[in-house]
Formats: sequence, C-alpha cells, structure tokens
Amino acid sequence: MKNTNLQDYSHKRFNILTGEWVLVSPHRAKRPWQGQNEEISKEKRPTYDSTCYLCATNTRINGEVNPDYKDVFIFTNDFAALQNNSPSFQVNDGLFKAQSETGICKVICFSPDHSKSLADMQVDEITKVVHAWKKEYISLGENDFINYVQIFENKGAVMGCSNPHPHGQIWSQSTLPNEVDKKDKQQANYFKEKKSSLLGDYLQQELEANERIIFENDDFVVLIPFWAIWPFEVMIAPKKQQRNIAELSDSESRNFAEAISVITKAYDKLFNTSFPYSSGIHQAPTNGKKNNHWHWHMSFYPPLLRSATVKKFMVGYEMFGSPQRDITAEIAAQRIKELV
Amino acid sequence: MKNTNLQDYSHKRFNILTGEWVLVSPHRAKRPWQGQNEEISKEKRPTYDSTCYLCATNTRINGEVNPDYKDVFIFTNDFAALQNNSPSFQVNDGLFKAQSETGICKVICFSPDHSKSLADMQVDEITKVVHAWKKEYISLGENDFINYVQIFENKGAVMGCSNPHPHGQIWSQSTLPNEVDKKDKQQANYFKEKKSSLLGDYLQQELEANERIIFENDDFVVLIPFWAIWPFEVMIAPKKQQRNIAELSDSESRNFAEAISVITKAYDKLFNTSFPYSSGIHQAPTNGKKNNHWHWHMSFYPPLLRSATVKKFMVGYEMFGSPQRDITAEIAAQRIKELV
Ligand SMILES: O=P(O)(O)O[C@H]1O[C@H](CO)[C@@H](O)[C@H](O)[C@H]1O
Ligand SMILES: O=P(O)(O)O[C@H]1O[C@H](CO)[C@@H](O)[C@H](O)[C@H]1O
Repeated sequence: MKNTNLQDYSHKRFNILTGEWVLVSPHRAKRPWQGQNEEISKEKRPTYDSTCYLCATNTRINGEVNPDYKDVFIFTNDFAALQNNSPSFQVNDGLFKAQSETGICKVICFSPDHSKSLADMQVDEITKVVHAWKKEYISLGENDFINYVQIFENKGAVMGCSNPHPHGQIWSQSTLPNEVDKKDKQQANYFKEKKSSLLGDYLQQELEANERIIFENDDFVVLIPFWAIWPFEVMIAPKKQQRNIAELSDSESRNFAEAISVITKAYDKLFNTSFPYSSGIHQAPTNGKKNNHWHWHMSFYPPLLRSATVKKFMVGYEMFGSPQRDITAEIAAQRIKELV
Repeated sequence: MKNTNLQDYSHKRFNILTGEWVLVSPHRAKRPWQGQNEEISKEKRPTYDSTCYLCATNTRINGEVNPDYKDVFIFTNDFAALQNNSPSFQVNDGLFKAQSETGICKVICFSPDHSKSLADMQVDEITKVVHAWKKEYISLGENDFINYVQIFENKGAVMGCSNPHPHGQIWSQSTLPNEVDKKDKQQANYFKEKKSSLLGDYLQQELEANERIIFENDDFVVLIPFWAIWPFEVMIAPKKQQRNIAELSDSESRNFAEAISVITKAYDKLFNTSFPYSSGIHQAPTNGKKNNHWHWHMSFYPPLLRSATVKKFMVGYEMFGSPQRDITAEIAAQRIKELV
C-alpha cells in the first residue's frame, strides 16, 4: 500500500465530486460491538406473491391492475412525493424561503419474479433494466418542467424498502437536488479550468494506482472511491466521458449491466446475505444546457459493516459533523475484490 | 396557517444556516406503511447494571475502574475516532487529497442512574450536565490543536447507541467538520452584510409568526425550524446572541436545562416510548478568532415518524438528492406543543 499513514492514523479525505470531507479512523475498526443487531430474513420468497402490489396481474392500492409483464414494468408512483399538477408558488418572507417543486415519480419493477434481486438476474435481464432507465431518462427529461431525473433503488428492509419485489424508483423534478447541485458545481469548475472531465481524470489515476479497483471491462470501472463514506460503498463509472446514460450504445449498456451484476453478486457473498443498499445514478441535468462537464456514474451505499446484522450508523457525529468511517477504502476494496 | 400552499403541495424550503434545501411533500403523509418496524424495548432498566461499562464503580474494557460518581462523569473514549498523538501528514497526489486529523474524544455520563434518560432527570441534574459541557468546551478548546468541539448524544438503539446508560459524547478536533463549516460560512456572510446574527433575526421572525414555537422561557426558544428535515426535529436557541455555551450565565444554564427537560419529556409522550434521537450543539469554533457571527444552538434529530416502531428512512432519494419529509414543520410543532 502506497501510503501507510492512511491505514494507521485518523485523517480526512476530500470528495472531489461534492467538495466535502469524510473522517477516516482506521485504528477504530477493532472496536467491539454491543449495539443494535439488524434482523435478517432468511425466508425464501416465492416467485409470485398474491399480496404483492408489484407482482404481475395483481391490483394496486388505487385499483389499477398490473399487466402480465415479462421483464420490466414501469408505472407512476401511487404515493408520489412530487406531482406534476401542483400550483407554482414562492415564499420569500424574510428568512422564511420556500418554492414549489413539481415532478413525476415512477416505480420500475426489474423483473416479474418476486423472489429475485439484481444479483440473481442474468446480465441480459439487467440490460433490459438499463434500457428502461435510458428510455425514462430521455422521455422524462423531454418535459419542459423536468430538469433533473434521479434514478435510484432502496434494497432491503434496513434501507426503508417496503416491498421485497425487485424494484427501483425514478423521481424527476424541476430543480437540482442538493447532492446533484454540489457535483454539478465541482465538475463545472474543473472542466472550465482543465478542459477535461474531473471523474475521467480521476478514473485514470485510480486505474494506475490500482489500489481500489474491484473490476473492469472494456467500458466500465467498478471501484471504491478514495473518499467513500459507507463501509463498502462502490462506484461504477464509464471509462469514456459520457454526460448521461442516454449516450450508452447497446454494447455499453450490456457492459454496464455486467458491472452491476458483478458488484451485486459480490455484495451478496460478502456477508452471505441479500446485501441491502441504496444505489443511484448521478448524471447531467435535463435542463437543455450542454452540460459538457458531466460524467455520469452509479453509486452503491450499503450500510452493513461487520456482518449481515451489524451496520454502520450515520448518527450523532456524522449528522452534526462529517461522515465517519473505520475500515479504509483500500481494505474494503481488497475484501470485495476477492469475491468477484 | 399563513400559507396554505405549504400544507398542501410539494415544495422545497431553504435552510438559512446550511444553505441547502429540504423537499416537503405534505400530501404524502397519508401513505400506508408496509416496511420495517423497529423493535421497542419496554424493558425497565435497573438503576445499576453490573455489566454496564458506564455505571459507577464498574471496570471498563481497558481495565480502568469508574469512580463512584454522583452526578456527571467524563472520561476519554476508549475507542476514540480521533487521537491526539497521531502524526501530521498530507496527501496531495493529483485527485487523491487527504490530511491527518487529530483530536480528543470523550464520553460524558449524565447520571450514575442506569435507568434514566435526560427526560427522567430533574432540571437541577440537567443543569449539572450543562455546566460540564461548558467546562469541556472551554478546556478542550484551550488546546492549540483543537479548533472545534462537537458535543452530541446518540439516544436509543435505533440511533446506533450501544449502551442505554444515559450518556453523550464530545469529539473535538483540529478542523471544522462539514456541517459546521457550512453554518460558519452562512452566518459569516449574513453578519458581514447585516451586522446582526442570522439566527437571532430568524428567531425574532419565528416568535412573531408563532407557528412553529413549542416553548419559551426568559432566555430560550424551543421550535421546529422552518427547514427541519427529521419529522419531529427541534432546535433550542438562546434569544440573545451568544457565540458558544461558555457565555452562559448560571441562570441561563438553568433555563437551557429547563428547555432540554421540556422537549425530551414531550418527545417521550409523543409515541409513549423513550424517544430516540441524535442531538448536538453547534457553536463557534475554538480557533482563536472572534467568531462574532456565531449564534450557538442545540438540535434534536429524532427518526420516529408515525409511532414508536415506524421511523423515517433517509435513503435512496435522500442520499442521492435532498432530504425529504412528509409531515410539515407546522403540523409537527402543533403536535408536540400539545404535549408540553
Ligand atoms: O461511539 P459509539 O456510541 O460506539 O458509536 C456510535 O456513535 C458514533 C458517533 O456518532 C458513530 O460513528 C457510530 O457509528 C455509532 O454507532
Ligand atoms: O418510496 P418508498 O419506497 O415507499 O419509501 C422509501 O424511499 C423513499 C425515497 O428514498 C424515502 O423517502 C422513504 O423514507 C423510504 O421509506
């Protein structure tokens, strides 16, 4: 390992994409755990569950009947956090500042098979999910009032997922959310100065260092970022700069699907459990601008730390100060790499 | 209610202290919950537990014996995330940026009584905790290498607390953590322009609006901030601008303790459970500067949403986009106010 200080002593690392820091305390990884243990459901799910509102042919809460879908199925969220028909308003009352936000929220079922997760699906099946994401990014973005499309998945009860049927969500809206705004600014500043992609240059440096790389194929790198917050946080990024997933060719879509397959399978092996996480794709806004500074990427934020039942809590210090981690990105990368 | 749009339609609200937004979806509060339920421990704890490493006279993991303390007891964390004797180093290797971080982490037991929480303690007892915080802020801050002191508490297993004995933590360090840095900048900008305290002016406006105030005494306001993220997030702030808790007079310390007592008792009544939260005090850095722009405040971030077992998950959209809430700050304030 190049810099042993980073494995031995407390330090903070800089996230070049957000401009924020993470505190790393490598010496603390040996701390005993007496806190809360998560429940793991070892229950084997059926391929069809008559009470599941996402299974094919079942009726949802609003009375709509799901089609007898065979691969991917998408519908507008029955309890959407954002609506497209709400009025436009502003509150500018001294130090009280608010503004209306409109949007469209969708649910995307990855497979009709209730028992599966992305980790259990074939690369061909995941490729269909990638195609569907691409189509949604394009068509949602074509709406005048939609300037950003957030694709994400909450997997596992510990990540607030209320239905184990394999599915993700897409929330699209008129303004840039906080995290996207930070990455927009950092990438724009770098691009203005260097005329190259911040993430592209970073990936180059990571491939040379080869300390945090988990997997690569022709088009994609899977790695633990230098500044990762979650114990086994992972990023998938295209080697070639692309602003958004609409730029994916068919073969690139398949290689992206392969990368997703590789990391989700490795995750499940890590603690011998269906690994919980939130994942999401950060990509260029659909605001009609060129956005040549954007380099899209997908991240996985999994909470488990030591076992299937012991997670990292982002609480007190993390909420009031900065995110904090014990195990280093390098050690985490080594452990996952062995499982690929 | 002044602005009914804010109770009916999706919008985002601006946090004047961090410069970030929260997404509010009031119409979504009626969504049914089929997700994870938290366990509640209804177990009555004894006043002394021989296996607890925080109880008086017990031996800690490093062999030290706790004194037979009668009110507050403070010691250096046996598994400190920050250490005061680690070497100083910098990594400035292209896009890999890191720097050493030193500090001192302490644990503060609020009471020798294992069965209690702040909500069960007398105002006089909490006042002793306030005095101890004040002393620690001053003495830790006197170290040349300590420029910020973060006082916080993780309460409840769901908040990653590994020991139910009433206690908090104090992590002090050489640089400003992310959240403090944001508040430092926002307050400094405002102070430079208006020559008055951002939070002070805001409190004035809140007292006039009287929509989110939960409690006040001569020196303190307890309210739900306009931009609150967590369902029942609360802030306690001194009416008069003070940069840090070292400026508290004895009577102000007591009134601060009363405010803590009032809100923690109301919390416990809300869902008839010992209410979990992370709380923390944001105050002026101990960096030797005047910091006249700082107005200290204490915040409570409790995760429970609908009941003792259903919490708000800050996951997918929240991690990749912005924090999101359903119940509005105004409704939350009304509900807590009724319990004071
Ligand atoms: O120090 P503790 O109580 O063992 O640990 C708890 O609080 C820390 C500070 O917020 C967090 O980093 C840990 O994830 C949490 O479990
Ligand atoms: O939309 P769901 O799956 O019901 O809800 C889940 O994901 C949302 C988006 O990340 C969160 O706001 C909720 O707290 C979480 O429980």
